[in-house]
Amino acid sequence: MSQPLVLADDVDAAARRIGSRVRRTPVISGRAADLGLPVDVVLKLELLQHTGSFKARGAFNRVLAALDAGEVPVSGLIAASGGNHGMAVAHVARELGLSAEVFVPSTSPATKRERIAALGADVFVIDGLYDDAQVAADERGAVTGALAVHPYEHRAVVAGQGTVARELEEQVDGYDTLLVAAGGGGFIAGQAAWIGDRRRVVGVEPVASCCLRTALDHGRPTAVEVSGVAADSLGAKRLGDIAWSVVRRFVDDAVVVDDDDIRDAQRVLWDQFRLVVEPGGATALAALRSAAFVPEAAERVVVIVCGSNCDPATVAHRNSHQHEQG
Amino acid sequence: MSQPLVLADDVDAAARRIGSRVRRTPVISGRAADLGLPVDVVLKLELLQHTGSFKARGAFNRVLAALDAGEVPVSGLIAASGGNHGMAVAHVARELGLSAEVFVPSTSPATKRERIAALGADVFVIDGLYDDAQVAADERGAVTGALAVHPYEHRAVVAGQGTVARELEEQVDGYDTLLVAAGGGGFIAGQAAWIGDRRRVVGVEPVASCCLRTALDHGRPTAVEVSGVAADSLGAKRLGDIAWSVVRRFVDDAVVVDDDDIRDAQRVLWDQFRLVVEPGGATALAALRSAAFVPEAAERVVVIVCGSNCDPATVAHRNSHQHEQG
Repeated sequence: MSQPLVLADDVDAAARRIGSRVRRTPVISGRAADLGLPVDVVLKLELLQHTGSFKARGAFNRVLAALDAGEVPVSGLIAASGGNHGMAVAHVARELGLSAEVFVPSTSPATKRERIAALGADVFVIDGLYDDAQVAADERGAVTGALAVHPYEHRAVVAGQGTVARELEEQVDGYDTLLVAAGGGGFIAGQAAWIGDRRRVVGVEPVASCCLRTALDHGRPTAVEVSGVAADSLGAKRLGDIAWSVVRRFVDDAVVVDDDDIRDAQRVLWDQFRLVVEPGGATALAALRSAAFVPEAAERVVVIVCGSNCDPATVAHRNSHQHEQG
Repeated sequence: MSQPLVLADDVDAAARRIGSRVRRTPVISGRAADLGLPVDVVLKLELLQHTGSFKARGAFNRVLAALDAGEVPVSGLIAASGGNHGMAVAHVARELGLSAEVFVPSTSPATKRERIAALGADVFVIDGLYDDAQVAADERGAVTGALAVHPYEHRAVVAGQGTVARELEEQVDGYDTLLVAAGGGGFIAGQAAWIGDRRRVVGVEPVASCCLRTALDHGRPTAVEVSGVAADSLGAKRLGDIAWSVVRRFVDDAVVVDDDDIRDAQRVLWDQFRLVVEPGGATALAALRSAAFVPEAAERVVVIVCGSNCDPATVAHRNSHQHEQG
């Protein structure tokens, strides 16, 4: 399936469209010694975004563009999500005075379902994983006619996510490599669309759900099994086609980490920065901690910390301020 | 007791001395609607500092200056602390290859004691509040000769804390008013020393331990009773004399909030930013939420979020993403 490529211009347009509806999230230096890494890094704290993940960017861009085009029906918005995108859609709906229905899989944490409901959306829990919830949302949407806000398979969503890299450009004075967690591929495709060939973009996935690595290996999106601690945010069975059209051109590599690596990265972010980071949000850092990605000595690496929605009890632990070395 | 005033030049010298040993902590915009406030504010996220509070700044400046002067004995460092300063001293000792003894009151949370020990300092728990621990530390220091690193009653400590306001100057393009939590007064004095008369500096204290407000009312530091949820970080019985010498010249006002206001500010910071903020760290924001401090319509306010060391279970709560209005 051929898709029109999402390009830097689309990301620019997205940034103009969403404006101050999303937060400019800060960066902070992560010293090699603190994080147990071979090099200092910059952390982009996208987990401080509205609803605790980058998802508000893509959702706002998609819905605002549809509103501009007069494409939002009275039935409002509909989406499926492991949870973060659902929160973002619920937030966008509330901000714009729309109604929203969100389909989440039974395997997603209660925290996420409850937050979507607290934001005012109607929540439907579907047995299975994200893809099962998407099937249910698509069926329901065909009946209601609500605007489908896909978590990654839409050009406006991908372009919206890319505003993270665009913002980073203004915050970090030159860097070589961006480490980005990947699920369905919308987030990394957005960054790659903005960055193009100017810097390295490296995807990081759980070995338990690695549809990006598999797509690169097979030369096309291919269905994979999905499990593991980060499945609620990164557990897409198949890379999106729109994502793939960008990824195949502009993503330099994809590496995989295991669940222990992800838990370890969550722990160090808590110990050193007191940040509550969900598994998917810590996955990019896990690549450095586990040496799945080994930077050159002088390589300037930015790591996106992209989500926070989890029970803090799963992250924070007492007696935790040791300087851990990876 | 007359003290040489701490001035902006001292803060400059501190910034040069401590350099990159402390983190440049980021700022983020806090939208009025998100935070339930009458105006948009900027949050200075000093809770992302090493050991989770601003205290590393003052402790580094004090100890590095003493090292330069050849004043650090083999017995190392000694300090009393409600916890945050103790963590900072333990961190500084570890970074500089020194030993440290830290006296904490029995009323401080276990989280803090455990983190100090995990950083390698010897911890002594003293019945009572911070001031009781300080008495014990002073007695012990008289025997060992270790360098006393006071949490606020030292010019180098005050100057070090002031590097927050200095850093802020480079991050925020003009603002009118800085809201700062106050305990023994070292932190607010540091900010006021840097800012002088150029902007408003307003202190915020728990009504249950308000030695700053009391000093302003009485025209001198005066002993007060100490209790409440933030006593472990803001619970000094009497404003420091060095702090007072700065505060009386450059602090514009001090307002008080109650424990419910503080808990409410912790909750909104978790709901809206997923930040785990301890009571003392949320106290400055509490002044805005509770209307203890009411800004002018066009007033540009910066709020320092200055500490994170608490059990996240006391902050995070499920079903928590409502937009709360203060």
